[in-house]
Amino acid sequence: MIVAARAESTFVRDYKMDHELVTTTDIAVDQYICSSILARYPLHCILSEESSPSLDLASVGNSTPVWVIDPIDGTVNFAHGHHHVAVSIGLYIGNERVLGVVNAPFLEECFWAIKGEGAYCNEERLAVSGAKERRNALVATGFPYQKDALLPILERVSRILHHCQDVRRNGSAALDLCWVAAGRLDAYFESVKPWDMAAGTLIAEEAGAQVGRYLQPSDSWPVVVNGEGLLVSTPGLFDAMLSLTYLEK
Amino acid sequence: MIVAARAESTFVRDYKMDHELVTTTDIAVDQYICSSILARYPLHCILSEESSPSLDLASVGNSTPVWVIDPIDGTVNFAHGHHHVAVSIGLYIGNERVLGVVNAPFLEECFWAIKGEGAYCNEERLAVSGAKERRNALVATGFPYQKDALLPILERVSRILHHCQDVRRNGSAALDLCWVAAGRLDAYFESVKPWDMAAGTLIAEEAGAQVGRYLQPSDSWPVVVNGEGLLVSTPGLFDAMLSLTYLEK
Repeated sequence: MIVAARAESTFVRDYKMDHELVTTTDIAVDQYICSSILARYPLHCILSEESSPSLDLASVGNSTPVWVIDPIDGTVNFAHGHHHVAVSIGLYIGNERVLGVVNAPFLEECFWAIKGEGAYCNEERLAVSGAKERRNALVATGFPYQKDALLPILERVSRILHHCQDVRRNGSAALDLCWVAAGRLDAYFESVKPWDMAAGTLIAEEAGAQVGRYLQPSDSWPVVVNGEGLLVSTPGLFDAMLSLTYLEK
Repeated sequence: MIVAARAESTFVRDYKMDHELVTTTDIAVDQYICSSILARYPLHCILSEESSPSLDLASVGNSTPVWVIDPIDGTVNFAHGHHHVAVSIGLYIGNERVLGVVNAPFLEECFWAIKGEGAYCNEERLAVSGAKERRNALVATGFPYQKDALLPILERVSRILHHCQDVRRNGSAALDLCWVAAGRLDAYFESVKPWDMAAGTLIAEEAGAQVGRYLQPSDSWPVVVNGEGLLVSTPGLFDAMLSLTYLEK
């Protein structure tokens, strides 16, 4: 659907709050995924960026599976003709991430993981890089739509640029997480929403990444899908990345 | 050669001054391109990042064709398994850019332009986006290996992030220029070397981009291949981008 919509230029652009881009293809893919899940699993819950971003997860029981959907992660990239675009589908139950799928249709790479069974890109088993030295580390991040949140982020980017190999800003958080899993990036940090990280975080974990935070979350998402201050890296780099991204108040 | 070297993991990493990565594949591709050009055009000059970066261009006559070569633009990406990697070959005579080819082997996209004959990606004619509003503009940049040059660059990135849609840092200057040509990016700014911009700047110009500078060059490269303070954007965005990237002393 995503590849066809772009090939035929059939999508229409709109802007959400904070000037965040959304297209008719985001909505159409969201409807397709959500209706497919509910047809098969009518008692499951769905948290979706486009159709149910305000679902009250606190009221969901610990045994109810929750699907967390981003129909297009990298919508700006999609609209601009870039390759770095993905569908992100995560599944968690209670406090455990169970399943993650991040499919990049333009690159024909489907990243996926099942809890305890490793992470894969298509058929290939993934493992994080062996990076230990921050000087050689390639680090990805992202920037928020809310312009008033930029100051501490720019401070972190400055520190990373001064002490690491370089920064990448590819435009899809879900794929950044998968690229850490694949060893293409050595670390990734950003404050993101549940649908950006539910799938990719499990994929990174299952590939051997260390997952943590550089700040304490101030929002009320359950820990398992709380992407505030998300820091994911090779185990050998984690402490160095934490000290670079942690800011004193 | 580039795709094969990565598929077979036959390349070896090394670091140049300022901790800039180079691989044995950069060297091998450089030798292949330079020897092929000299076999056909023994009287032409070659300025190459890897084999002749210090060629004295001031001593080259105005009628001698000069080839400007980057065998791998995006070496860090190449070594990390990213797709955003290109061979850049530009040709200029006197004060005129004549030919530019930027080939991205992993994406199977070859960007090229001949002066006065338009710009192409494979067989498809390119044109810049119609972007006029900085609020919706997607802007690419890069970061230098020299860490002491970071401060003004971070100030520019901060301004762009506050006033534009978002920033991309893909890791190949040559491809960033081609992506402006293709309408995938609305603007690009960075201080780069001749081999990073000789080909891509002509491709962007031939696709309708406006080319200029946000600072006066302090180095001695001829204007036609001087990438210091390079700013390339859609004509409708150029003045806005210039005011965002120009810094008072």
